[in-house]
Parts: sequence; structure tokens; C-alpha cells
Amino acid sequence: MPQQNDNLKSIGPQGFLLPCPIFLVGTYHQNSDGEKIPNIMTASWGSLCSAQPPAVMIAVRGSRQTHKAIIQNKAFTISIPHTGILPEIDYCGIFSVTHENKFSRTKLTPTPAEHVDAPYVEECPVVIELTLIKYDEIGTHTLFIGEIMDVKIKESCLDDTGMPNPTKMNIPAYIPMLREYWGLGDFKAKAFGVGKTIAASKIAD
Amino acid sequence: MPQQNDNLKSIGPQGFLLPCPIFLVGTYHQNSDGEKIPNIMTASWGSLCSAQPPAVMIAVRGSRQTHKAIIQNKAFTISIPHTGILPEIDYCGIFSVTHENKFSRTKLTPTPAEHVDAPYVEECPVVIELTLIKYDEIGTHTLFIGEIMDVKIKESCLDDTGMPNPTKMNIPAYIPMLREYWGLGDFKAKAFGVGKTIAASKIAD
Repeated sequence: MPQQNDNLKSIGPQGFLLPCPIFLVGTYHQNSDGEKIPNIMTASWGSLCSAQPPAVMIAVRGSRQTHKAIIQNKAFTISIPHTGILPEIDYCGIFSVTHENKFSRTKLTPTPAEHVDAPYVEECPVVIELTLIKYDEIGTHTLFIGEIMDVKIKESCLDDTGMPNPTKMNIPAYIPMLREYWGLGDFKAKAFGVGKTIAASKIAD
Repeated sequence: MPQQNDNLKSIGPQGFLLPCPIFLVGTYHQNSDGEKIPNIMTASWGSLCSAQPPAVMIAVRGSRQTHKAIIQNKAFTISIPHTGILPEIDYCGIFSVTHENKFSRTKLTPTPAEHVDAPYVEECPVVIELTLIKYDEIGTHTLFIGEIMDVKIKESCLDDTGMPNPTKMNIPAYIPMLREYWGLGDFKAKAFGVGKTIAASKIAD
């Protein structure tokens, strides 16, 4: 826990200290023979960005094959992995489909999405299917905005009431500056709940 | 951990299951008397989005006072909080500056940023100063792209080698579908490292 009175020290504008999610972005890649092969790329710069239509933003460098595939197919998936496949996750962020078939190499299972023309990763606890609605370049990256067509979750990750259980999903986070994968911890508090006590105390003032 | 062969169940496009960071977005709010007062709003839809220039995206609803202030001042901060102030974090996501001064109510300390015209939260382990470079509407939200002018970290959150220590920062995550705050867990693996074994095994094939 940070101390109340310790100093803030500048680490410069490249001090990327935000905690990030980890996404396996699935697309169909067209190889030099014109064949469409399922491909995945690890990404961690992304976020929800609209409630209606429900939409997600991911930032992808222009040099990536996934960048080309999203524009060609106007579709992608996001498979949110569990911590049991961290070597596979890491591999898919380092290597390119131009080097070798990443699904074959990692032994992860490509499955065609239900609503969009892209594959997802069968082993992942959460899968999101997206249709490209907009993209824009920001510096080194392109922001792809995808409308969420569906979200799927493994039945084993639901609790008895049918709600998703983060402990069962076992999803990792990424700390970009440190280049480290971390696990999710424990439940701390209910949002739109624990803060109401502060306002309530005002009424009692 | 999800099981290998269990089924994926559709929970629909509003099943917002991405793990999110938690940001306190700092701006100067102009009240009806024309006074500029420091304000903060909790946001969790945001991400890094460019390496050069270093930039962050946050999604903010048009109805928010923070939306107006970012456009007016072309500047904002992101203070990344620790889990010790979850009631304050939650409060700042529920209530509006038009209701009361949120810094006064929460007893959090506003400090003027060094490089931009916005306040940050003194108590937070990580602070990011941003200049607005672009914004765009996506459905219910506006995507604000801020160029990172500086990142600051509490000295108590650095380890002996001078690197940030996520355990000392003690930053929470947010699960939007469940509306729950969770803690960060433990170190799991080095990125750009643990995946190389998979490629190395290919060389031995």
C-alpha cells in the first residue's frame, strides 16, 4: 500500500504502468496461396468503449498480419485466456503467422465464430465476437472499434446462480512497463455500492 | 480453471466480461459562477493506444461534467488508485460535481499537474498527465485520446532496483458485468519470455 506522504517520482511518458487485460485476437489470415487460415495475436491494449451499441476498442500496429486481416474481413474475435496457457499466450504475441501456423504450433483449437467471419480459441473461458464498425490511426497503432455481436463463457466458469465467477475464469492481467503477466486476486467490494456510505455520511452531517 | 471440454454458453452482447483498470480522471470543472474547481470521475473503460506518441484512450459518456471539462481544457489526468480507497473510488463514479465537490467529500487531495491544466489525486500510487489530441464519438461514449506527458509513481511503490512493484502499488481491477472491484493477484510469468520455449521446441522438431 502506498504511504500517505511519500513522494511521486517522474518516470517519464513511456512509463506504461496501467494494468491491462490480455486478449487473443482471432482472424482469418489469407496466405500467399490465397488460403484462409485461422490466426491469433496476443494484444493487451484494448477496452470496452461504448454501451450501446456494445463495443470494444483494440489498438494494433500496422505491421501486424492481424491488422490486415481485420480490415479485409471486417470481423475479429477476442478470446480471453486463463493463466494455464501463459506460454501459448506469450508465443502468440512474439511470433507471426508468416513464420508458422500459430494454432498448430500452440496446439490451441480454432473454432469458427457463430456470428462473424473469424475463429476463436476453444480453450478460453470467455469469447467475444466482433464486427468492425470503425478504425482510426493514432501514432504507431490503429484503433479498431468492434461491435460486440455475442459474448460466450465456459459453463464451468459460472457459479450456482448462473453468474460468471472470476476465480473460476482465472484470467491474467498484463503490466506493460514490466512486461509481466499477473493473476487476478480476490473480490474486494461491490461497485455502485461501497461508495454510497460516503454520500450517506453527508446526509448525517 | 476452465475445463478443457466444457461448453461455451452465450450470455449475449451485453456480457461485459473484460477485466478493466480503474482510473480517477482529473479535470478542472467550471461551475456556474465561472470558478474552476478540481474534479474527479471514476472510469474503467480505457487503455493504452499508441507507443509513439505514447497515448491513452478513455471512453466517457456525453452527459458527464468530465466530458465537457476535457474538451474545454484539452487536458486531463489519470490517477490509478490503490485498494485502500475503494469507497472513495466508488463514490466518484456514482456522484457528480454538480451535486457537491467530490475532493472535499472524499477528503482526497487535489494537486495541480506539472505539465497539463488538470489536477491529480495525491494519494494514488500512479499518476498520468495527458494532453487531449483527438476525440471521437462511438455510440453512447466519446473516446478521448490523450498524449502522455508524464507518468509519476510513489517512491514507496518502487522496489530496490528502482522498478515499480505491482504488489506495493496494490491497484484494483474492475469486472464490469459483475460491477465488482477485485485485487491484483501474484506474478505469474515474464512476457516476451515464457512463450519462447514453444518456438524453441519447434527447432528441436
